[in-house]
Amino acid sequence: MEEAGMSAFHGSDLEKIEAIYGIPRERIISFAANVSPMGISEGLIDAMKDQIRCIERYPERDYTKLRRAISSYCKAEPDHIIVGNGSSELIGDVIKYHGGKKALIVAPAYSEYERYVKLAKGTPVYHDLREDEDFRLDLRVLADELERSGDDTKLLIICNPSNPTSTAVRAEDMRDILALCDRRQITCVVDETYVDFADDGYDMSYLAGEYRSLFVIRSMSKFFSAPGLRLGYAITSDEELKGAVEEIKDPWSVSSFSETAAGYMLTDEEYIAKVREYIKGERERICRRLDSLKDKGLKYYEPEANFVLVRLPEGGVTAADLFETSIKQGMMIRDCSTFRGLDERYVRFCFMRKEDDDRLIDLMTENID
Amino acid sequence: MEEAGMSAFHGSDLEKIEAIYGIPRERIISFAANVSPMGISEGLIDAMKDQIRCIERYPERDYTKLRRAISSYCKAEPDHIIVGNGSSELIGDVIKYHGGKKALIVAPAYSEYERYVKLAKGTPVYHDLREDEDFRLDLRVLADELERSGDDTKLLIICNPSNPTSTAVRAEDMRDILALCDRRQITCVVDETYVDFADDGYDMSYLAGEYRSLFVIRSMSKFFSAPGLRLGYAITSDEELKGAVEEIKDPWSVSSFSETAAGYMLTDEEYIAKVREYIKGERERICRRLDSLKDKGLKYYEPEANFVLVRLPEGGVTAADLFETSIKQGMMIRDCSTFRGLDERYVRFCFMRKEDDDRLIDLMTENID
Repeated sequence: MEEAGMSAFHGSDLEKIEAIYGIPRERIISFAANVSPMGISEGLIDAMKDQIRCIERYPERDYTKLRRAISSYCKAEPDHIIVGNGSSELIGDVIKYHGGKKALIVAPAYSEYERYVKLAKGTPVYHDLREDEDFRLDLRVLADELERSGDDTKLLIICNPSNPTSTAVRAEDMRDILALCDRRQITCVVDETYVDFADDGYDMSYLAGEYRSLFVIRSMSKFFSAPGLRLGYAITSDEELKGAVEEIKDPWSVSSFSETAAGYMLTDEEYIAKVREYIKGERERICRRLDSLKDKGLKYYEPEANFVLVRLPEGGVTAADLFETSIKQGMMIRDCSTFRGLDERYVRFCFMRKEDDDRLIDLMTENID
Repeated sequence: MEEAGMSAFHGSDLEKIEAIYGIPRERIISFAANVSPMGISEGLIDAMKDQIRCIERYPERDYTKLRRAISSYCKAEPDHIIVGNGSSELIGDVIKYHGGKKALIVAPAYSEYERYVKLAKGTPVYHDLREDEDFRLDLRVLADELERSGDDTKLLIICNPSNPTSTAVRAEDMRDILALCDRRQITCVVDETYVDFADDGYDMSYLAGEYRSLFVIRSMSKFFSAPGLRLGYAITSDEELKGAVEEIKDPWSVSSFSETAAGYMLTDEEYIAKVREYIKGERERICRRLDSLKDKGLKYYEPEANFVLVRLPEGGVTAADLFETSIKQGMMIRDCSTFRGLDERYVRFCFMRKEDDDRLIDLMTENID
C-alpha cells in the first residue's frame, strides 16, 4: 500500500527492506510501523505457554468472553462490539455495507480507506486537513461540508488520532457532527487505532450508545505490540449495520489463540498503564528535542498518538534522502510523500526505546544542518 | 448455519449445547465437528512455547515461508497457493469473484456455499447426488448438465470427499470435467477439507497446474486438529483469479501464530502418517461394526473421509431422537435433516477415539433395535 516510491514502504515491509538493503530484518528498528516498543509482557507469555492447546477448538461462536473483556477495557456494551480479523476486516466490511456510495474521508489518511471504498465501487471524496491549520480538524467546516453533501454520501471516515498527522479531535467536540450524521443517516467511522496512546478525552467509544451513526474501530496491533494477533474490534449501537457486518464477515475470523491472548491483554491494567505512561513521556521528550530544531526550519505537528509527523526544512534533505540515510543505520522511518496533501518534505516516525529515539533524532539533526 | 431444528447444531456449537443441556463443554465428545481426535502434537506444543513472541510482528506480507511449507505438503507450486483465514474466507472470495452469476453446487453440501453465493447476489443451482446411487457423483451426468448450462454459470462447487456424504471422486476421473470447465471458463471449486484423511488418489491439487479452471481449497482445521488456527489455503494456476482474490481479501488474514504453527505442522511427517493410519483403521473398523446393523435396516455410504453418513431404519428412531439420546450421554452427533436431499433419517458422525466410537455405536445399536 502507498508504495509509489522506493522509500515509501509500509511499516511492515521488513522483508523487502531486507532484500534491497541487505539488512537482516531483526536488526531494523521500525519507526514506521507505529507499534509500541514495549513488546508483550512476560505474564502473557507465561500464560499463553499453557494455552497452546486452545487451537484444538473453534473460537467461541459469538466471542462472548472476548467481547466481555473488550467491554471492560473500553467501557462499551458487549452487545455493541463486533470482533474482526484486524481492524482491516471491519473497515472493509462497514465500507462494503455502504458500497456504491460516496465516502467522505478526512485526509491525509491511511490508504486502505480509499482502497476499500473503490473495491466496494464507492466514490472517495476528501476533506483535506490544512497545513496552515497544523492539520487540525475544524469540525465546523467539516459539518458545513457534510450539510452540503448529497444523499449519496453515506460514510464519513475519520482517523483519530490521525495517521499520519497524529493530531486529534476531542470526543466531546464530536457531538454536533454525530448528531448531524444521525439525522442524515451517515455512518461516521472513527478509526481509533491509536487512541489508546492518547491522553484522556479523545476516546469516543462511550458515545456509541448515544449516537447510532458512530462506528468506532479499534485494534490490538499497535498499543499492545501485537500486530501478529490480527485482532480488531468495532463498537456501534446501530443494530442494522451490526447485523449486516456480521452477515458479511467470515465466521470465526479471529483465531482461538488471539481470542485467548486478547482476553489476558485487555485486562492487564498494570501493563496498560505502563505503556501509556512510557509513550506519554517519550512523546513529550521527543517534542522538546524537535523544538530545538525549529530554528533550522523543521516543523512538527503537536502529536497525540505514539508517532509524530515532521516537515523537513525547505530546500534541504528530502524525506526520501532521510529514509535512505536512516535505513542504512538500521532505522526505518516513513517517507510520507505518497500521502494525499503531503509532499517530499514530510516524514513520520513512532516512539521507540529512548536510546533508539535519540539515535534517530541525532541523525536527523546532523542531516538537516 | 443449518440450524433449523433444535438438534441440527453445527459441530462447533458447544456453547449452545452447554446452555441447553447443562453438559460442560469439556465433557462433550464432538462427533459432529469432523475434527481429528488426535489433537496437536507435543512437539508442536513445545515448539510454540518458544514462539509466543511471534505475535509481536506482522505476519510475512506474502506468507512466503508458509506457502513454501504448504507447497512441500501438497505438491503444488508456491506461486499457485493463496492462504486465508480458514477455508471460509477463500470460499467466500472465489464466490465473490463470480458474484451475480450462477453457481452449480453438488448437493447435499456444506451450507456456507449457498450462503456465500447468495451474499454475492449469485444464484445457487443444484446437482443432486442420488441416494439410489449411494450418493456417488456421476461425472458424466454432471458433465452433461454443465454442457447444457448457460453462459451465466461461472462456478461449479464440489466438496471432495463430500460433506456430509463422505463419498468421493478420484482425481484422475476429474480430467474431463476440468477440461470442460477450462473450455467454458467455469471455475471448478473443489473443497478438499477432508482429503487428507482419504486414501491416495483423491487429492487433486497436482492437477491445478494443468487445468486453469481448478480451484482447490484446503484447511488445517480438521486433519490437523486445529480449527482454532483459522487457516486454510487455495491452489490455482488461474493468475487472473488469484490476483483478484488477493485484491478482495484482507491483507494478513492469517495471524503470526497460525503462520508459525502451520509451518511446523505441515512438515511433521510422522504426525501426518500417524493420523492417516489411525483414521483409515478406524474408518474400516466402524464400517465393519455398521455392517452388522444392516439387517436391522440401517444403511451407510462408503466413507472416504473421517466421518460417515448413516441412514437410520425406516419407522424407527429419527435423527433428532438419536441426537437427543446421545447428547445426554455427552456424545454430539450431526442430525442431517436440514441438508438438501436428506431427511430426518440421516445422521453423520466422525471417527473419534476407539472407546468413544464404540460407545456411540453401542448406543446406536440399542436404539435401533
